[in-house]
Amino acid sequence: MANSEGRTELEELGEFGLIQHLAKHVEIKNKSTALGIGDDAALINPGKKQLVLTTDMLVEGVHFDLTYTPLKHLGYKAVVVNISDVCAMNATSSQITVSIALSNRFSLEAIEELYAGIMLACKNYNVDLVGGDTTSSLSGLIISVTATGFADKKDMVLRSTAKEHDLMCVTGDLGGAYMGLQLLEREKTVFQADENMQPDLEGNDYILERQLKPEARTDIIKLFKELKVKPTSMIDISDGLSSEALHICHSSDVGCNIYEEKIPLDHQTIQMAHEFKIDPSICALSGGEDYELLFTVNQKDHDKIKGNPNITIIGHITSKAEGCQLIGKGDVVHELTAQGWDSLLKKN
Amino acid sequence: MANSEGRTELEELGEFGLIQHLAKHVEIKNKSTALGIGDDAALINPGKKQLVLTTDMLVEGVHFDLTYTPLKHLGYKAVVVNISDVCAMNATSSQITVSIALSNRFSLEAIEELYAGIMLACKNYNVDLVGGDTTSSLSGLIISVTATGFADKKDMVLRSTAKEHDLMCVTGDLGGAYMGLQLLEREKTVFQADENMQPDLEGNDYILERQLKPEARTDIIKLFKELKVKPTSMIDISDGLSSEALHICHSSDVGCNIYEEKIPLDHQTIQMAHEFKIDPSICALSGGEDYELLFTVNQKDHDKIKGNPNITIIGHITSKAEGCQLIGKGDVVHELTAQGWDSLLKKN
Repeated sequence: MANSEGRTELEELGEFGLIQHLAKHVEIKNKSTALGIGDDAALINPGKKQLVLTTDMLVEGVHFDLTYTPLKHLGYKAVVVNISDVCAMNATSSQITVSIALSNRFSLEAIEELYAGIMLACKNYNVDLVGGDTTSSLSGLIISVTATGFADKKDMVLRSTAKEHDLMCVTGDLGGAYMGLQLLEREKTVFQADENMQPDLEGNDYILERQLKPEARTDIIKLFKELKVKPTSMIDISDGLSSEALHICHSSDVGCNIYEEKIPLDHQTIQMAHEFKIDPSICALSGGEDYELLFTVNQKDHDKIKGNPNITIIGHITSKAEGCQLIGKGDVVHELTAQGWDSLLKKN
Repeated sequence: MANSEGRTELEELGEFGLIQHLAKHVEIKNKSTALGIGDDAALINPGKKQLVLTTDMLVEGVHFDLTYTPLKHLGYKAVVVNISDVCAMNATSSQITVSIALSNRFSLEAIEELYAGIMLACKNYNVDLVGGDTTSSLSGLIISVTATGFADKKDMVLRSTAKEHDLMCVTGDLGGAYMGLQLLEREKTVFQADENMQPDLEGNDYILERQLKPEARTDIIKLFKELKVKPTSMIDISDGLSSEALHICHSSDVGCNIYEEKIPLDHQTIQMAHEFKIDPSICALSGGEDYELLFTVNQKDHDKIKGNPNITIIGHITSKAEGCQLIGKGDVVHELTAQGWDSLLKKN
């Protein structure tokens, strides 16, 4: 089917042909998936659990740049960002639907790369692809993923239930995805100025992977069960720590103190931030796309999480009247402001 | 907030501002909606029922033309096409998520129009808007809707379970949406050639509404319960009768005979088809976007549906070996072929 350049035109397949072609590689892994791709809708057996439903859309030129984003990574990330939302409810992902709009600029081989990433994420996170929509766009690539998940009602964690004196914690480290993006953008500019220049990405695998192939912290959801900890509130960090902390505080009608020196940063993030003459804390506070979890726990659970290498206590919940504060080096107090990644402001 | 032209720029609101603004008008109507907009995900209590999950994406320039599509109608239609998929499983819609990507070409007022249509559909179909994503695009408008629905497992109707000798039926009439589109396209061309020309749409309300403001046949799902009829298979007609009949036959491993003269057509559809020198049957067979239901019933249910003004028997299921046939006027037999609306072929 492919021509001499190994490229198969989507026109040759048609929409139904493309769907059939892609559906061949899909196998069902979850008992709750009663019916997957191939009918008007998917069918899901929820059992006695509560259903979690979330959706995210990625737009070419806004959320990703195909100059430096491999399509397989993009497919992987599109799934992971949704699974991360399900995690943030303390639930386990089970099904996704994937809708894509694409122009004839993309060949079948390109779409297969994208789906290889989608299927790899499904495999790694034990999630079933159960439906979607495949359509054309006039220029760019748009991916819209919806994820479902389940948990017992008593285990669900909202962002609106943090209480005064709770400890505020994050998983992993922050700011890496943002520095990875800055690095990719810089090397793109260099390459555009002189096509003979090779991108200088060496020694920065970690921050590049944070940007291009993030992971959802499903391991933390399991860890909570093992440690018998139920967070009092939780959110995933897609828009930067500041913005997410403010979401929890506004939803829960509380304030918070976050200690800047407690914010976990990887040494590659710090090093690259210095190279770019950016304060590394700013990367964590405003960078976003880390897909770590920000959560609060009751102080009685302190001993259960203390010293766990996956979790860092960065502050605590205060009263609403005290506001949302960042305690900087030398005890300088700043009001926490959301300079989160705001696509409507930044990109148009 | 609006300027002297009554236009509010989206930049002034930002993404979170826009979401908050839009969420204000959302009220929850279904008991099964445990948590709506405002957290990482929505929460749904499925009770003992089976969950239906479906998604559809509409792309500007591919699925709609804003020259003649009012934004309110577009929002309405984006929801309805998903509810129609839930109907086609014999289930009742309960929640939707809506993701939109839009450029700064759109003002807040424009987006409010779009959401007014979305909310009207939610009201008319008793569906809760429980989440979504709002992001920017570089040019066009993209809307991706996901719908959930519920039914008892025993009531679910798939497309893969039609049996030989079953009757093949459709609801309403077909081809109207396609003729509405042809009319709108013609008047757009006339207007582009001479801006002083007023569009000539009079007397064609029905076919225009079929195109611009289709409805999902939730009434038929209720009717089936009243009549104590469970279809043996069902699909909604989004791509034209031929394509949908072939879907049922291929999924069910059967053939069919459809009688051309039985296909229900509205007089406006017939009239406009003649004006365009198109065979009206072709509009029904290949036009699509009618969002009627194509279903099969066991012959024993014939008396229950016979004479019902909402339902027309157009043929019957045969063996796979007999193939999928259209019996034309004068008993001329054609093989049924899918010339369905194939966006990948038509639009690039």
